[in-house]
Amino acid sequence: MKVLITGVAGFIGSNLADRLLELGHQVTGFDNFSTGQEEFLSKARGFAGFRLERGDILELDALTAAMRGADLVVHLAANADVRFGGLHPRKDLEQNTIGSANVLEAMRLCGVGRVAFASTGSIYGEPAVFPTPEDAPFPVQTSLYGASKLAAEGLMEAYAETFGIQVYIFRFVSILGERYSHGHVFDFFRQLREHPDRLEVLGDGRQRKSYLYVQDCIDAILIALEKSRVRVNIFNLGTSEYCRVEDSIGWICEHLHLNPRRTYTGGDRGWVGDNPFIFLDCSRIRDLGWAPRLTIREGIVRTVEYLQNNPWVLERR
Amino acid sequence: MKVLITGVAGFIGSNLADRLLELGHQVTGFDNFSTGQEEFLSKARGFAGFRLERGDILELDALTAAMRGADLVVHLAANADVRFGGLHPRKDLEQNTIGSANVLEAMRLCGVGRVAFASTGSIYGEPAVFPTPEDAPFPVQTSLYGASKLAAEGLMEAYAETFGIQVYIFRFVSILGERYSHGHVFDFFRQLREHPDRLEVLGDGRQRKSYLYVQDCIDAILIALEKSRVRVNIFNLGTSEYCRVEDSIGWICEHLHLNPRRTYTGGDRGWVGDNPFIFLDCSRIRDLGWAPRLTIREGIVRTVEYLQNNPWVLERR
Repeated sequence: MKVLITGVAGFIGSNLADRLLELGHQVTGFDNFSTGQEEFLSKARGFAGFRLERGDILELDALTAAMRGADLVVHLAANADVRFGGLHPRKDLEQNTIGSANVLEAMRLCGVGRVAFASTGSIYGEPAVFPTPEDAPFPVQTSLYGASKLAAEGLMEAYAETFGIQVYIFRFVSILGERYSHGHVFDFFRQLREHPDRLEVLGDGRQRKSYLYVQDCIDAILIALEKSRVRVNIFNLGTSEYCRVEDSIGWICEHLHLNPRRTYTGGDRGWVGDNPFIFLDCSRIRDLGWAPRLTIREGIVRTVEYLQNNPWVLERR
Repeated sequence: MKVLITGVAGFIGSNLADRLLELGHQVTGFDNFSTGQEEFLSKARGFAGFRLERGDILELDALTAAMRGADLVVHLAANADVRFGGLHPRKDLEQNTIGSANVLEAMRLCGVGRVAFASTGSIYGEPAVFPTPEDAPFPVQTSLYGASKLAAEGLMEAYAETFGIQVYIFRFVSILGERYSHGHVFDFFRQLREHPDRLEVLGDGRQRKSYLYVQDCIDAILIALEKSRVRVNIFNLGTSEYCRVEDSIGWICEHLHLNPRRTYTGGDRGWVGDNPFIFLDCSRIRDLGWAPRLTIREGIVRTVEYLQNNPWVLERR
């Protein structure tokens, strides 16, 4: 299989590229390196089946050229910054919505018939139902990030109906693991590296969140692509558990043998648009035979170990 | 109240402008006249409180300049062509999604705190529940038009959460009445004017559709703006009935004293992405005291009468 991965130099993209190459597939990677890291591709570069195209998904011509001959597009390139949407409202629109529209247009121009898309549990806003299933009540968006991903989902579905392509939409919880370079474990680890005696927590620490280990996430994507064969395939991806931010802090501190004084910015959410409770119903993907191998706790510890062994990641952002 | 109406020279926009001006409000109209009609503004032009700004919602500077001082924006400008989305996939994205993002950005730049937005029942795709309520199961999009409106809804909601504006989202069924210039009554009337003895029907004629008279639609918008005061206000707008395309043809032909031979293109839908059954649960707006005054049949007859008296409308498209 020839696979084009957008955002190949990112956390999930580079892990997926490695996996697909190990399985014997050909991978063309596409990345503008705005947040992607050259180092994340060092393993992929060792495979003859890997090709890298530098470019931006907002440049339709470059994207189309990179895509020619692909059997499948995995569209991961995105602005993944949920928290600061209000500071630059166009960024989510451009990179997540218009960028995804370009991916679909490039597919149409090249005749590529399948796409897998990284969406987010954030599109459920503040759900009325927990765990939240894929057909939850019509949600109200609470962040520019979520809105931009919802828009991209809708475009994928409309292209499927209008042009007959097959789409796979994955609504992720937060993903953890090797090459993780963004999010709460990253922020806490960096703080504790700078001042091991104190930790500032956004919100009251009681937010309930879900996390999934990156290799479990990749397993799920590959199983869905293999076993689910309707035109529009939508899957929540997460574990069957959640933790409080406080739990996560405890596991991180225990692993690091630290006992910092914790201060809280207060309130039941970390920032405007933060979701105080994320817990997805993943029975649809589990029904295909998938199950995560790591618990949230194991995923968090694995991530801290990665950051300990790769301190350069902390300097890059 | 100072109201900016985008798409003021359109079917709904011009009727709304007339109503607001009659109620003593000031109206600034904004339109690029891509489908709007100068004639539709002849009444509005008679009011001292009316001002027209020619411009495109894709031009943020012009839009922002027109918006200064407004208390409320009613955003109606859109590509309303549901049927031919596949012929120009960028059009819905640009005019409906990016255009709406510009409206929100202009509001943020001007400090305008309220927006009413014309969305569509098309965003429910092919619903699992009839009549379809606002919190129906998370829909799958079936048209580029619906996807582009869903994207705009999400942006409105995210701006409400992020920047504290108040948004009113109206999910319309098809609207009928004076200045109607687009849709199935228009198409049938034009066909029968050209060849009164025959009528070509897209699909099998058994599609079930809902329609609402434009003045009833405007009543509902004004009642919602007055009585619903939360941050994100979402309302279906339609009648508590539906009809088959066949019924509609019967009423049109009866009114015109014609008995054409009907031919059908076949299939349970008129075109790719056409929805064979649209029927919205409007109890939320009814609970505010609103009720439509015209039945679907009365709305259709009123529309045919308008087209009979204004044949120039048929020549413009």
